This record gives sequence, structure tokens and C-alpha cells, in this order.
Amino acid sequence: MIEKIHHIGVAVRSLDEALKFYSETLGLPVQASATVEEQGVKAALLTIGGSEIELLEPLLPESPVGRFLERRGEGLHHLALNVSDVSQSLEAAKARGLEVIDQTPREGLSGLIAFIHPRSAHGILTELVQTV
Amino acid sequence: MIEKIHHIGVAVRSLDEALKFYSETLGLPVQASATVEEQGVKAALLTIGGSEIELLEPLLPESPVGRFLERRGEGLHHLALNVSDVSQSLEAAKARGLEVIDQTPREGLSGLIAFIHPRSAHGILTELVQTV
Repeated sequence: MIEKIHHIGVAVRSLDEALKFYSETLGLPVQASATVEEQGVKAALLTIGGSEIELLEPLLPESPVGRFLERRGEGLHHLALNVSDVSQSLEAAKARGLEVIDQTPREGLSGLIAFIHPRSAHGILTELVQTV
Repeated sequence: MIEKIHHIGVAVRSLDEALKFYSETLGLPVQASATVEEQGVKAALLTIGGSEIELLEPLLPESPVGRFLERRGEGLHHLALNVSDVSQSLEAAKARGLEVIDQTPREGLSGLIAFIHPRSAHGILTELVQTV
């Protein structure tokens, strides 16, 4: 069962510039920021109601987010949905023939996660998140 | 002040196909669906926590959503944020030199709305919504 939008991930060229918009202009509080070397990003999390906006600046052009920016420009990178049982949701997706990126859930920053490919999710890279 | 994500608008080629994913596979309840001639779309609203996913199928290829699909393919079309005072948020955006699509708020389906251009919002067409 899906509970809510957990976060939307936004690819940006400059975290500092994006924070001027999301934090200073829109007034969203910054909850955390960190460099995550293994994902090749500098990230900031902003709180918006019960959800979050995750800003992602690539550390290198050849990282996944760097390649996304090159191909598509700035914009929505992925949509993360809070599910009560990520294994069940992932199995349901596979049973319907959807193309999944993770065959089994794996540990993410906020809990157990699994990605569905944008080809099977109407153009949106979709992350299922079971928070702990 | 921004209260929450009001909805995310997703451009899709076929509402029926998209509903198979969002409603049947993910299990999100459909709250409403309608043809909105003046916006050139068939739309469906799904409830997700305190927010909504708005699926948009163009009625004609030369409509705004039709042109978006042609240019970008399926995916996020816009992000709508619930604000307590849309006039105040819009003026704050203009005062910071952001490019806005609406110079003053106008009536939308859910209340008073105003759009900020993606060029000033890191690639995301951003809708401010003051619900009534």
C-alpha cells in the first residue's frame, strides 16, 4: 500500500543556486545536506509538509545525475513513494511485467528501497521506499 | 508559506494505460476524472497521502500537453505547491527576479493559482496553489 509521496528528487547544476530558489525564495526548511560519494552527488533535503524535496548536484559529469543533466537538463530526476511493504509492492510490479531496476529491495538512506524503470512508469524513474 | 506538495502533474500518452500503473499496480485511489476542454486534456486525479497525482492526456497533439509529449516524452509536467497566500508567494518570486507565467493569481480548479516558469525553477514548471 502506498502511503504518501516520500520525496521528489531534482537534478540541479548547482546546489547553491537551487537552494536560493527552494530555501530562500520558497522558504522551505533545509533538513540535511551531505556529499554522498558513492552516489556521486552533493545533496540537500528540504522539508515540504510530510514529504521532502531532494536536490541532487552531480560531483562529476559522468555520474548518473551528471549524465541525466547532460541529456535532459535540470528537472525531476525521480519520484519516491512511501510504501508499507516494499517487497510486496516490488513483487506486484514484477508480476505485472513492469521493468524493475532492483530485483530485490536494497538498503537506501531512508530505509529499504527499490526502483522501477521509467520505461514502465510513464517516463518517471519511480522509487519505492519502506521507511524504518 | 508553503504547506505541502499539492499535486504532481504527469503528461501521459494514454490515460487508460497510465491508470493501469498508478491505480491497478500501485493501488492509488482515483479521486476524479474529467475532460477539461479549455485546457485540452483528459485528466485523472489520484490520491496519495495528503497530495495528488494528476495524469494528463492531451486531447490534441497541438495542445500544451501534446507539445510537451512531443518534445520531452511522458513524465513530470509540473509540480504544484500548496501555499497559504499565493499573492504573497508570487510577489516574493517576482521581487527576486524570477520569470513568472502569471503576473497575478488566477482561478484554477482547486483555488487561486500562479505558475513560475521552469527557466526560473530549475527545470520544473512550478504551480503555486492557494486552496479555498
